[in-house]
Amino acid sequence: MLEHEIENGPSRVRLRFTPSDKDVRVPAGVSVFDAASWNGIAIDSTCGGHGTCKKCKIRVVEGNVPVQRLDGRAFDTEQLRQGWRLACTALANEDLLIEVPPLTTRPKAATVGVGRQVILRPAVQKRYLELESPSLSDQRSDVDRVLQAIDDLELRVDPGLLREIGGVLRGNSFAVTAVIVDDELIAVEPGDTTPAQYALAFDLGTTTVVATLLDLITGTPVAVHSMLNKQQPFGADVISRISATMLDPSALGRLQALAHETLNELTADACAEGGVLPENVYEVALAGNATMVALALGIDPEPMGVAPFVLVSHAPSGMLAKDLGIQVHPRARAVIFPALGAYVGGDIIAGALATGMDRDKRLRLFIDIGTNCEIVLSDGDRLVATAAPAGPAFEAGSIRCGVRAASGAIEVVRLTESSVEIEVIGQTTPVGICGSGLVDAVSELTRLGLLDSSGRFVSSEVAAERWPHLAERLSEVAGERVFILAPAEGEVDRPIFVSQRDVRELQFAKAAISTGWTLLLAELGLDPSDVQQVLLAGSFGTYLSPISAIRIGLVPKLPVMRIVSAGNVAGEGAKMVLLSAPERHGAAALLTEIRYVELSDRTDFNDRFVEQLAFPS
Amino acid sequence: MLEHEIENGPSRVRLRFTPSDKDVRVPAGVSVFDAASWNGIAIDSTCGGHGTCKKCKIRVVEGNVPVQRLDGRAFDTEQLRQGWRLACTALANEDLLIEVPPLTTRPKAATVGVGRQVILRPAVQKRYLELESPSLSDQRSDVDRVLQAIDDLELRVDPGLLREIGGVLRGNSFAVTAVIVDDELIAVEPGDTTPAQYALAFDLGTTTVVATLLDLITGTPVAVHSMLNKQQPFGADVISRISATMLDPSALGRLQALAHETLNELTADACAEGGVLPENVYEVALAGNATMVALALGIDPEPMGVAPFVLVSHAPSGMLAKDLGIQVHPRARAVIFPALGAYVGGDIIAGALATGMDRDKRLRLFIDIGTNCEIVLSDGDRLVATAAPAGPAFEAGSIRCGVRAASGAIEVVRLTESSVEIEVIGQTTPVGICGSGLVDAVSELTRLGLLDSSGRFVSSEVAAERWPHLAERLSEVAGERVFILAPAEGEVDRPIFVSQRDVRELQFAKAAISTGWTLLLAELGLDPSDVQQVLLAGSFGTYLSPISAIRIGLVPKLPVMRIVSAGNVAGEGAKMVLLSAPERHGAAALLTEIRYVELSDRTDFNDRFVEQLAFPS
Repeated sequence: MLEHEIENGPSRVRLRFTPSDKDVRVPAGVSVFDAASWNGIAIDSTCGGHGTCKKCKIRVVEGNVPVQRLDGRAFDTEQLRQGWRLACTALANEDLLIEVPPLTTRPKAATVGVGRQVILRPAVQKRYLELESPSLSDQRSDVDRVLQAIDDLELRVDPGLLREIGGVLRGNSFAVTAVIVDDELIAVEPGDTTPAQYALAFDLGTTTVVATLLDLITGTPVAVHSMLNKQQPFGADVISRISATMLDPSALGRLQALAHETLNELTADACAEGGVLPENVYEVALAGNATMVALALGIDPEPMGVAPFVLVSHAPSGMLAKDLGIQVHPRARAVIFPALGAYVGGDIIAGALATGMDRDKRLRLFIDIGTNCEIVLSDGDRLVATAAPAGPAFEAGSIRCGVRAASGAIEVVRLTESSVEIEVIGQTTPVGICGSGLVDAVSELTRLGLLDSSGRFVSSEVAAERWPHLAERLSEVAGERVFILAPAEGEVDRPIFVSQRDVRELQFAKAAISTGWTLLLAELGLDPSDVQQVLLAGSFGTYLSPISAIRIGLVPKLPVMRIVSAGNVAGEGAKMVLLSAPERHGAAALLTEIRYVELSDRTDFNDRFVEQLAFPS
Repeated sequence: MLEHEIENGPSRVRLRFTPSDKDVRVPAGVSVFDAASWNGIAIDSTCGGHGTCKKCKIRVVEGNVPVQRLDGRAFDTEQLRQGWRLACTALANEDLLIEVPPLTTRPKAATVGVGRQVILRPAVQKRYLELESPSLSDQRSDVDRVLQAIDDLELRVDPGLLREIGGVLRGNSFAVTAVIVDDELIAVEPGDTTPAQYALAFDLGTTTVVATLLDLITGTPVAVHSMLNKQQPFGADVISRISATMLDPSALGRLQALAHETLNELTADACAEGGVLPENVYEVALAGNATMVALALGIDPEPMGVAPFVLVSHAPSGMLAKDLGIQVHPRARAVIFPALGAYVGGDIIAGALATGMDRDKRLRLFIDIGTNCEIVLSDGDRLVATAAPAGPAFEAGSIRCGVRAASGAIEVVRLTESSVEIEVIGQTTPVGICGSGLVDAVSELTRLGLLDSSGRFVSSEVAAERWPHLAERLSEVAGERVFILAPAEGEVDRPIFVSQRDVRELQFAKAAISTGWTLLLAELGLDPSDVQQVLLAGSFGTYLSPISAIRIGLVPKLPVMRIVSAGNVAGEGAKMVLLSAPERHGAAALLTEIRYVELSDRTDFNDRFVEQLAFPS
């Protein structure tokens, strides 16, 4: 890598499109076709940018794009001189002005992710063919007969198809539907099955797994299902699961089987709900952290669990759905999101794709809070990322009265001068406190000065003086100072409280995260006050109160409107690559654009961490 | 296809190489690298022509070769102006004079086929790597660590490797051997295994299957084994086996299993004899007729068995050895020879490759005699082929005293004025007559005038008049006229004879074949007297007496020295593509160069056939 790139990331070029008058910046070296696709500018194409259909004609009005071999087949010398090129082989290596001719077909688009509009261009496509029957004067092979009827594409043939094609052709008077994924013919189906084109997007979380069944013709979800990851008995977080494989040689196989069961049960449920035959699902996309992906593929995760935290592969490719145990079409493809590192996995790349981290000029901070917290910082040109070991506090794992964010969990806490107001999930009797409730409680206690900025509960005397109506809540349980959120009365059978140790747990967790983004900002020579937007990813991000997050210093201090819950962005990324194949190149581009900053070997980490332990005053 | 090509086949160009001063003609559009490789001219390369190593530098001295993208990376403007190009992307579309720089490494070569010398350039290669261990400042993934150490190649990664690579690297202090096949990394092995690089070539015949285990470093065979195809119980010829699958839905699965058993038993035997571990075999090549290949792959052969005789695929690609049931390295690749048609299969393409049918300026006729007889005619520029249904006569299948060419079979017959001389396989008591003996017998009987040119035995009176000492051999058995080759005396327990009906069977068989080559010659506007060499392929070709073949009119009448037994050319072709990957392009080129002439729908076939029934006078 060049020093320049280390400092600034790979270089970017500016592309202007006419007549749409769009102005975009993309990494140097991407194709004009991909650059247009990623930015919602439709260019004619039936092959999706594989250089076979020769329909993606554009004219380079300003700037220089060398003539490629395919251009010579698509244009005559005069046209080449005028700047005509095929967008799929035209590489943007400098600033360009591009003229896009009117479309012959109206493109469909779908909105996914955080306001990202994608042009519907799935890798899956079908062609209904009514073929001539063979004769002694036309002895073309079955495969050639089908391939030659799809003359705008140059397709490879899945070997598994060879056992079926003869029977399907002859059983249906040579009226069949060809199923294409990317540049490969994967199936030939009886009659016209063109209306049935589906794909499944998976967000494979350590805790929760979500499946979205997509209709690739309309671009809309037809069913969404989620369930707990069946690997839970092996531990709540990735480290426990990695440890399990290190302690017991049979654990990897069992974890893989459980991942497959989870994915497959969701597949069956989603297909049943959507009224879709599993064999009409031709592609799946999987966004997960690196450990979840490794376990699902049966790859030993140990090297990711111990220093120096190494991945087997950044970008496992050539996978099939059946390699993930997913029972859909037997030759369905699997797109697995690439991982930047052992702790910045495919889920984060998917999230960065869905939130357009590399194409927004604002300085944005993406935070996916969990036991392992991933952070991406970008000003649209420079992207840096890191992983912070936050521990289980945000999932209330190590918290005395902590419970998972489910029915009965206190998820919101507000303190007034005289009362403690709580909101409970399911509006039922509270049984404990979940992560967002804990953050609220600590934030409120700090605001009222019942916790000092070092995170210590103030003395009972000071509390009684400041807030006489709340002072009685400051108590002791098993010799530890606590603040009682819900006393044991009525249906509440034991008091629900936040303890001094709970506060410490949260301090360590939030300090790990804020040290992460502080160091990333320092990498770019910027200050927390420069941040213009914070995107909180994942389900925790959805429930967390932005104002509380600011108060405890989990995120930089900026107007609360700029703290955005981005939701399940990993799942959105998975949907994007299924709806628009060029977005896969976008994911791959992110891998080269984002620079990973390892925290564990930094000499300044501990100093920064200690600084961040305190709550902002 | 252009009319010109239909008339003349694809066009050819002439390439001259300096300083070797070789002058070759190749199909227009092949790469200079392939053209050189096929003709034994070594050009530096480590990637085998995949465009990644950038070592195959040549200079175009005369003629025009457009600059390709890779050239721009390998040469500066001045060098490009001087004609420097990478041979692997330089396409020969016109006559060229090419300067080949001195080699940096001395190429190894091997002689295979009929005098074909190939430069050793196997698709399989190994690299021993001593890698740096990962550290916090070098967190490259395992895959990237290996790939970046092989920086002259751009490799894809077999997904199956991902489950193994981590353990192999860490179990061997990161000193490992990378196994590459073509442009794919298929394995990483502990320590230095570079001396162990093997491949298996299979000639998958309907009757006999031959396996040759090749050492890819020396280019020499380390073991050769053959056995009867275990599918024999389903019938002796391809039609019986196709019929079996049509009568019984379970037969295809059983035939496939038997093919796999056959291939696998040979694999085990060859590896045991050669002292080679099966997991050190990384590639296999299979040459077989289209039916044998289909059955081995589990493809329903029915469409090949009934008009219009259609293949599922000309060129099954992307196959693994395990798809053929061959238990070698689990990710070993399989090269399956492409087939021209249902009755001109991969075995014939392999044979045409091994005999250099497309690169010899003489008019040559290639005949593979069997139940189905394949014929290729070439003048080096124009190649035509057909299949003739010869029936079982040459395998003595329908012959009264016919036996397979094994111990006890009369394989040579000579008649003198007064005696019948026979040679028996194994020099033992004769038990019957095999194909070559039958051809000899009929040839000799015709020469002496005991058979007339219409194939009828002359009357006993005429016989007695002409050859008094032989006349007693002309007898009757079960009401049919016969000529006794071995009377029942001594250890011969029943007379061995050629019957009138046997002669008819042979006449029909040889007429089918000679009609075939007569029509091919007519296609090129040529006469049988123009033929300069006849290559007899297969084991039958080895035993057949050339003079007898001429006398009965099985081959054109030409000096007997020009009738050449080419031996097991299908097996030689299979060896060639394993020893030299560019030869695979040669096989693919043959598929486009050879024009198939279907006999079964020709209106002139029957007329020609009747003409050919008689013996030449």
